[in-house]
Amino acid sequence: VAGETLDLFLERTRARVDHALEAWLPRPPRVPLLVSEAMRYSVFAGGKRLRPALTLAAADAVARRAALAGDDAERRRVEARDRALAAACALELIHTYSLVHDDLPAMDNDTLRRGRPTAHVVYGDGIAILAGDGLQAAAFELLAREPDTTDPQVAARKLQTIVTIAHAAGPAGMVGGQAIDLQAAGQATNRSLTLDADGLRAMHAKKTGAIIRASATCGAIMAGADEPLASAVDAYAADLGLAFQIVDDILDVEGDAETLGKTAGKDAAGAKTTYPALFGLDRSKGLAAECLDRCRATLDAAGLLDGYLWAIAEWVGGRRS
Amino acid sequence: VAGETLDLFLERTRARVDHALEAWLPRPPRVPLLVSEAMRYSVFAGGKRLRPALTLAAADAVARRAALAGDDAERRRVEARDRALAAACALELIHTYSLVHDDLPAMDNDTLRRGRPTAHVVYGDGIAILAGDGLQAAAFELLAREPDTTDPQVAARKLQTIVTIAHAAGPAGMVGGQAIDLQAAGQATNRSLTLDADGLRAMHAKKTGAIIRASATCGAIMAGADEPLASAVDAYAADLGLAFQIVDDILDVEGDAETLGKTAGKDAAGAKTTYPALFGLDRSKGLAAECLDRCRATLDAAGLLDGYLWAIAEWVGGRRS
Repeated sequence: VAGETLDLFLERTRARVDHALEAWLPRPPRVPLLVSEAMRYSVFAGGKRLRPALTLAAADAVARRAALAGDDAERRRVEARDRALAAACALELIHTYSLVHDDLPAMDNDTLRRGRPTAHVVYGDGIAILAGDGLQAAAFELLAREPDTTDPQVAARKLQTIVTIAHAAGPAGMVGGQAIDLQAAGQATNRSLTLDADGLRAMHAKKTGAIIRASATCGAIMAGADEPLASAVDAYAADLGLAFQIVDDILDVEGDAETLGKTAGKDAAGAKTTYPALFGLDRSKGLAAECLDRCRATLDAAGLLDGYLWAIAEWVGGRRS
Repeated sequence: VAGETLDLFLERTRARVDHALEAWLPRPPRVPLLVSEAMRYSVFAGGKRLRPALTLAAADAVARRAALAGDDAERRRVEARDRALAAACALELIHTYSLVHDDLPAMDNDTLRRGRPTAHVVYGDGIAILAGDGLQAAAFELLAREPDTTDPQVAARKLQTIVTIAHAAGPAGMVGGQAIDLQAAGQATNRSLTLDADGLRAMHAKKTGAIIRASATCGAIMAGADEPLASAVDAYAADLGLAFQIVDDILDVEGDAETLGKTAGKDAAGAKTTYPALFGLDRSKGLAAECLDRCRATLDAAGLLDGYLWAIAEWVGGRRS
């Protein structure tokens, strides 16, 4: 059954990524105890590891497709996975840093995340800012170090991955999206914005979409995808990211704090622009379903249906938390 | 005269780096106006560009030394400078991001920097945090993109530069040093520290020293320095960074706000551990002079006295702001 298979893949991804991060994140005495502790507190907080799963699933799908012609399918898949693991871990570090900073009082002011007090509640705002800064730097160090090889082809892919992730995380991507979100929430001094449907889509495309796209694309790059194939993976992930955000908005209306591990109803309480607020719940669900249809069509056309990418899209479409 | 020559080199470096950053920093509509504005506000705030100057001076010194045997000295120097320019700019972006974050109310709570209101005063804390985050991401994107060549040797140097800068900026370096500084200032929830002389030196080695070392070392790397030569540049910069910090502490006692462009006497007011507080002014000046002596000896032994590295050290030792 596809569902069981995906569960197993996600479980293995989580174990693999957590193990690599545990080994790789620096410890005292190399780094001061407090900042090491604050970084680990947020990294090992029971996240779903969706972004690393996308990276490894994309690498796996590209390797499966390449192996169709040859007989060394298993070797290709293992090699692709090993080469993509550092990118998978780095993307989770970037994602974690963004959560730590977004939770700050100066931003979304969240005190609960994944059922635990947020980093700034435990360590104070200053250390939380530094932990986030440190996680971003650690992500790029990891990307440039691993996989540790002098193979020029792999070096070129690593540089392409760093460009892709830095661009997605930066002002043209995640950081820019969060800035628009702050303006829309009236939290930027004298510089408020009101978002219409296009503005909302553009904000989410930057804030969460860019890193989700980079997650899938970098898996494809590290597995050696050519440009058309990497573009197909990127297009799939763009629709996946939009579906993810619409479902997130729907869950904020329909979910409860216990399942979500965070405060539900927060969007409505903060008068945030959301898909349900703009389109109503039914139309929002329809929009999410359309995104998933496009995901499948893109994967099908690119010969990437074999593997976990489609199952991940189905999971995102149906997730309850 | 050496002083005049250095002034010209610094002026040219500033023009070259500002021009490159102006062209390279993303603008609307690629990035949202507000975050672009906040990033530029802090980047173009009249900084001394010490770190880029170190990068270009190190690249220049390594190229001069390599050219001693051949007759293409000028070509080598231009090539080294061009290859090191992206690293020089990236290091200034990292330095700027650290200033924006360190100035936040949750950290040092500075409202004046280089004679102007700090970013969070102008844009609010949330946008200032994001501008800093965006500058860090932009730095790594720049490092991975430029110089834009498929030469495997240059690609390997770019990756080495990214490792060096990310490590220096991260929890083992700058971020870790600032965390220790926050603890020493009693600003980390329930986790205060008291610094003795060794602790103070270790804190500064991380907080400002790591990026100063990376600035010089990456110039050497991009110019093709071998390991012993890059290590000599690193050792020079370690002493330079320590001298820089001791002089900074002395200036906080002796300087005035008008010359410094920031609030003087702030260290004493905040009961911060400083070199003058631990050793007195005279012994502090002696310690700075000892650092400079070591700088010169290191450069001399490595054959790197030709160029601007020694003049930069003299400038750091004698600076008034």
